[in-house]
Amino acid sequence: MALLSPSRRLRRTPFSDGVEAAGVQAYTVYNHMLLPTMFRSIEEDYRHLKSAVQIWDVSCERQVELRGPDAGRLVQLLTPRDLRPMLPGQCYYIPIVDETGGMLNDPVAVKLAEDRWWISIADSDLLYWIKGLAYGYRLDVLVDEPDMSPLAIQGPKADDLMARVFGDVVRDIRFFRFMHLDFQGRDMVVARSGYSKQGGFEIYVEGGDIGMPLWHALMEAGRDLDVHAGCPNLTERIEAGLLSYGNDMTDDNTPHECGLGRFCNTQTAIGCIGRDALLRVSTEGPVKQIRAISIGGDRVPGCDRYWPIKAGSKTVGRISSAAWSPDFNTNVAIGMVRMTHWDEGTDLTVETPDGARPATVHEKFWV
Amino acid sequence: MALLSPSRRLRRTPFSDGVEAAGVQAYTVYNHMLLPTMFRSIEEDYRHLKSAVQIWDVSCERQVELRGPDAGRLVQLLTPRDLRPMLPGQCYYIPIVDETGGMLNDPVAVKLAEDRWWISIADSDLLYWIKGLAYGYRLDVLVDEPDMSPLAIQGPKADDLMARVFGDVVRDIRFFRFMHLDFQGRDMVVARSGYSKQGGFEIYVEGGDIGMPLWHALMEAGRDLDVHAGCPNLTERIEAGLLSYGNDMTDDNTPHECGLGRFCNTQTAIGCIGRDALLRVSTEGPVKQIRAISIGGDRVPGCDRYWPIKAGSKTVGRISSAAWSPDFNTNVAIGMVRMTHWDEGTDLTVETPDGARPATVHEKFWV
Repeated sequence: MALLSPSRRLRRTPFSDGVEAAGVQAYTVYNHMLLPTMFRSIEEDYRHLKSAVQIWDVSCERQVELRGPDAGRLVQLLTPRDLRPMLPGQCYYIPIVDETGGMLNDPVAVKLAEDRWWISIADSDLLYWIKGLAYGYRLDVLVDEPDMSPLAIQGPKADDLMARVFGDVVRDIRFFRFMHLDFQGRDMVVARSGYSKQGGFEIYVEGGDIGMPLWHALMEAGRDLDVHAGCPNLTERIEAGLLSYGNDMTDDNTPHECGLGRFCNTQTAIGCIGRDALLRVSTEGPVKQIRAISIGGDRVPGCDRYWPIKAGSKTVGRISSAAWSPDFNTNVAIGMVRMTHWDEGTDLTVETPDGARPATVHEKFWV
Repeated sequence: MALLSPSRRLRRTPFSDGVEAAGVQAYTVYNHMLLPTMFRSIEEDYRHLKSAVQIWDVSCERQVELRGPDAGRLVQLLTPRDLRPMLPGQCYYIPIVDETGGMLNDPVAVKLAEDRWWISIADSDLLYWIKGLAYGYRLDVLVDEPDMSPLAIQGPKADDLMARVFGDVVRDIRFFRFMHLDFQGRDMVVARSGYSKQGGFEIYVEGGDIGMPLWHALMEAGRDLDVHAGCPNLTERIEAGLLSYGNDMTDDNTPHECGLGRFCNTQTAIGCIGRDALLRVSTEGPVKQIRAISIGGDRVPGCDRYWPIKAGSKTVGRISSAAWSPDFNTNVAIGMVRMTHWDEGTDLTVETPDGARPATVHEKFWV
């Protein structure tokens, strides 16, 4: 692995001091911000995430805040998901598409009130798209990036840790719902959500000054729970089928290709951008789609580019994420496969930089 | 320095194979793409850039292409710089601001024809802002990111190297002008431009397949010129006063604060976004501004966050980029300073992570 040159442009977070003290070894850059990728080792981090509880600095999940009478109208403009059933206190995963139906981001929308929303973004400057639209449409809404840094608590012991800091009330928060809770006199939105399948919470921390006090309080409270600094784990998220914007999908892809058709209500989400482009694909289905793929042989190298998937000499797809899975004793991967070869159990070949490997298509991920 | 985890999301470029073979040691991430930051050492790269010629993979200067009858109208909407004098064949540096006058990017616009432009962007997804506006305004224009990867040739021997590959005609290209030239039967736009003060060119390479053939041809042709792979050099660009979006300026800053007031024709650039917000500042001037700042003592650490600038106990600015300069035997820096303390020769204190250092404000950079 090469080194990452530090600069102001790769923004630190309110938790960076804690991350460094915990011995971070590697980062990625996400929304112009540092996102840790490894503390002890990918495998040790993986085992620990599945057995204990971790504190993740996911400040890079930047928020776009929408405030004003047109906020709700603007959010519906952005996504083919029908938002009419959504109540304040709920989180929705909302694919965002452009006028051609191409994915621009796949954020979680947090509805604070009818006229106030946060959009918790994946790695693209969605702020610019939303601001451009708001300006072009002359909408009565303020759009900006607030000083808000999410901290995730993930792992099977997440409820226990959170209860010690925020009270037992956290146990009552349902999946993709949130509560306003107090920490040292500060209001924090606490949602049951997060980028793993081990369960847990995301705390929306407003104001950088309260970041390290919260970090320390959680570390202190979780000592006997074996709490440790952690981060989204490549292997665990592939096993779980959690997609990554920029890796597994780009603006070349429709939500349907990404297996996100169930979040698109193309008939009823009237007025959303990209509706015309998606109407046909929503009826007929996509011709290629995201699949779980197991790759044979020993540990694959880091997947830093698309790896072609072949059926004989014909390219029928590409791998976009791959990692060795200790629990399933195989390489787990995410790829896009053409419909001619996407059925369960189809045997194919993947061209990795180390050479060709046998691979098998699965309709379900490893959870 | 920490490690950078590889992933597809941090895009490789058509020249990555060459960059790796040349022994790249460190990267940054820029527009979701790998940008090399060091080959031999910052100092060795710096000496070589100033004495020979380097080939830079600056594919991360992604292009936003605008095509169609409303292309010119849209570009003028984006920037307070008056584009009426601009002819096809010219490049203009154009600050891009939002409706509040805050900088969103500081790209170079390349006017190919009245109805076809490239915008060569700094590190933010300007594509999203432009697409959002084009859609909101219902403009008759296509906006996308073409498969275009700039390769820069920089250094005092750049003309000699380029002439060997593209012919002596390159010597006639004036600063910020371009020509269409042929390489192995492919049309390439070659501009006299680049992110150093050593002189040179940027080649707009269309199609990834021709990337390595061009790289090899330049390396081969420049053997006796001591050509080497290089990259934008932190020390050289600070000496030269070349600003970096995300480091030295953000959307909190007006162009006037960044010393870019001369590129804002607020009176005549009618219809541009942010004009109302900038009218007053363009008359009265900003209350803080970018300055060259020398910092005393030995080599400063990497500037990965703002360093406060103090006059006594009062904060009067912040440093955003800093590096040791072998040629000027001081630490060179870029900072934003309030008008009360921005005059030439003002002595101040900079709070670095290593402790306080004496510093001096300069009205001119080191070139």
